[in-house]
Amino acid sequence: MLQFLELMAVIAAASFGVLLARSKHLDPVGCISVTFVVSFGGGTLRDVLLDRQPLFWIQHEHYAWIVFAIAVVGSLLPRLPSGLDRWLAVPDAIGMALFSIAGAGVAVRTEAFVVSPFLASLFGVMTGTFGGVLGDIAVNEVPRLFQPTTPLYATCAFVGCWVYLLLRETALGADAALWIGAAAIVALRLAALRWNLRLPGPRR
Amino acid sequence: MLQFLELMAVIAAASFGVLLARSKHLDPVGCISVTFVVSFGGGTLRDVLLDRQPLFWIQHEHYAWIVFAIAVVGSLLPRLPSGLDRWLAVPDAIGMALFSIAGAGVAVRTEAFVVSPFLASLFGVMTGTFGGVLGDIAVNEVPRLFQPTTPLYATCAFVGCWVYLLLRETALGADAALWIGAAAIVALRLAALRWNLRLPGPRR
Amino acid sequence: MLQFLELMAVIAAASFGVLLARSKHLDPVGCISVTFVVSFGGGTLRDVLLDRQPLFWIQHEHYAWIVFAIAVVGSLLPRLPSGLDRWLAVPDAIGMALFSIAGAGVAVRTEAFVVSPFLASLFGVMTGTFGGVLGDIAVNEVPRLFQPTTPLYATCAFVGCWVYLLLRETALGADAALWIGAAAIVALRLAALRWNLRLPGPRR
Repeated sequence: MLQFLELMAVIAAASFGVLLARSKHLDPVGCISVTFVVSFGGGTLRDVLLDRQPLFWIQHEHYAWIVFAIAVVGSLLPRLPSGLDRWLAVPDAIGMALFSIAGAGVAVRTEAFVVSPFLASLFGVMTGTFGGVLGDIAVNEVPRLFQPTTPLYATCAFVGCWVYLLLRETALGADAALWIGAAAIVALRLAALRWNLRLPGPRR
Repeated sequence: MLQFLELMAVIAAASFGVLLARSKHLDPVGCISVTFVVSFGGGTLRDVLLDRQPLFWIQHEHYAWIVFAIAVVGSLLPRLPSGLDRWLAVPDAIGMALFSIAGAGVAVRTEAFVVSPFLASLFGVMTGTFGGVLGDIAVNEVPRLFQPTTPLYATCAFVGCWVYLLLRETALGADAALWIGAAAIVALRLAALRWNLRLPGPRR
Repeated sequence: MLQFLELMAVIAAASFGVLLARSKHLDPVGCISVTFVVSFGGGTLRDVLLDRQPLFWIQHEHYAWIVFAIAVVGSLLPRLPSGLDRWLAVPDAIGMALFSIAGAGVAVRTEAFVVSPFLASLFGVMTGTFGGVLGDIAVNEVPRLFQPTTPLYATCAFVGCWVYLLLRETALGADAALWIGAAAIVALRLAALRWNLRLPGPRR
């Protein structure tokens, strides 16, 4: 089950990378590079900052093969299915939820030094959302995550990570906490998309 | 005394992060992200490149709390006090000086391998100034540090790091060298602001 | 011989850094920063992602001196020789070839964990080409490597890395494989420049 969800998460992230690269008219080299950055950027940043070796996509090499294949196929297709980004909304919400909770869990269980729950929640958000930020930076855009026009995204990850971090200290245990935290992120994110919920932005 | 100055340095760096985020009309998620990048980017780059673990803001977690609080408050205030950047000039110069000297000191004292004084001076400049560079890149601007319209900034850090690195080999000792190097940076930077001193730029 | 080629590779990379910085009218601080990013970015990314310490330019400190000197001189010259980028095409091809093969070789020989030939080929391409990508990002451009107007570059590195990775398992041995792989990259790259070979881009 978890493996199936992980696979779906990687496929959704890679598909968004292809969409981003094609929206900027990049060639296959650009498409492959940007797809890798979007798919693996957040987790790689977490692993480097926490000094975890090997990186998760070196350990689970089939992720790299999947991302590579999606990027190559996606860059060569004459046109992408229209409405692809709407189809991807649910897998993306699940992927972001899984990566965020996994990121917070990895951070809080660090053994070489102490990572507090507060910092772990930030690592969770970063793991789940910064692939897209790095991808936007790589193609010379202001990251959409930072803009007031985006429905709640990082905020859902932040709330869900706290649900997970608090519940794992209770009698429920770490496994139940993981699923409840991830479900909270997915539910919040889909609600944000449905009703276009946003953070208060600055007045212009 | 040093702790008070460090606190001031973090507050100044975070305030500049908020100013940068608001100038680009980012939402609170963008404001928090950019403020963290501006405040911790230079030191994090140093720690990652020198393989120092844990990162300084994981070790001194209260820095992360301060930066987070400033970013949240700063993103929600209806308007910032006008002239804030002028008020921040002196704390920023002190903060940049402290971070630069600390960066050079950390680099030159590396035990796992040899870092020469020349490389240590570059690490000092990077620690003191690259938070702002990474912040500018994150919000899709050409870094102001790289532009000929900016009064001397990295150059002050470079000179002060050399003052520190040379004096610490003398009878004065490392502590006196630290204070004299940092004072040199602050004095140079304030002089550069006062008389608008710049490096020779390319003719256009 | 190899040392002479390495020196040429560093000089070519640094010269492209200076060209990039001057095309954006940066001051000497910007020129030095961008030149370091272009020259050392790809190899540094490889070393950080594979957890290799010390970084190659800390170990071989004379590289840093050469890059620094080229950047300082290059930022102060009133004008650069015209047609410099054409003169640099051959040294750049050789430099990119050497860095790519060296990157793939370092990755595949990693001892702390297993890096497969597929991942090693990606590390090779990254080592050889991502300095320029990071430099373009730093000066707020869409990386040229990603654009369909660029003659084959990363593709040459990819093919040559596979030539190297496959031949080193044969009776030829690792040394011969290195030279044949690097020669393949240089030949492909010069052919791509001569006949303007490109990857199929997206239709606009």
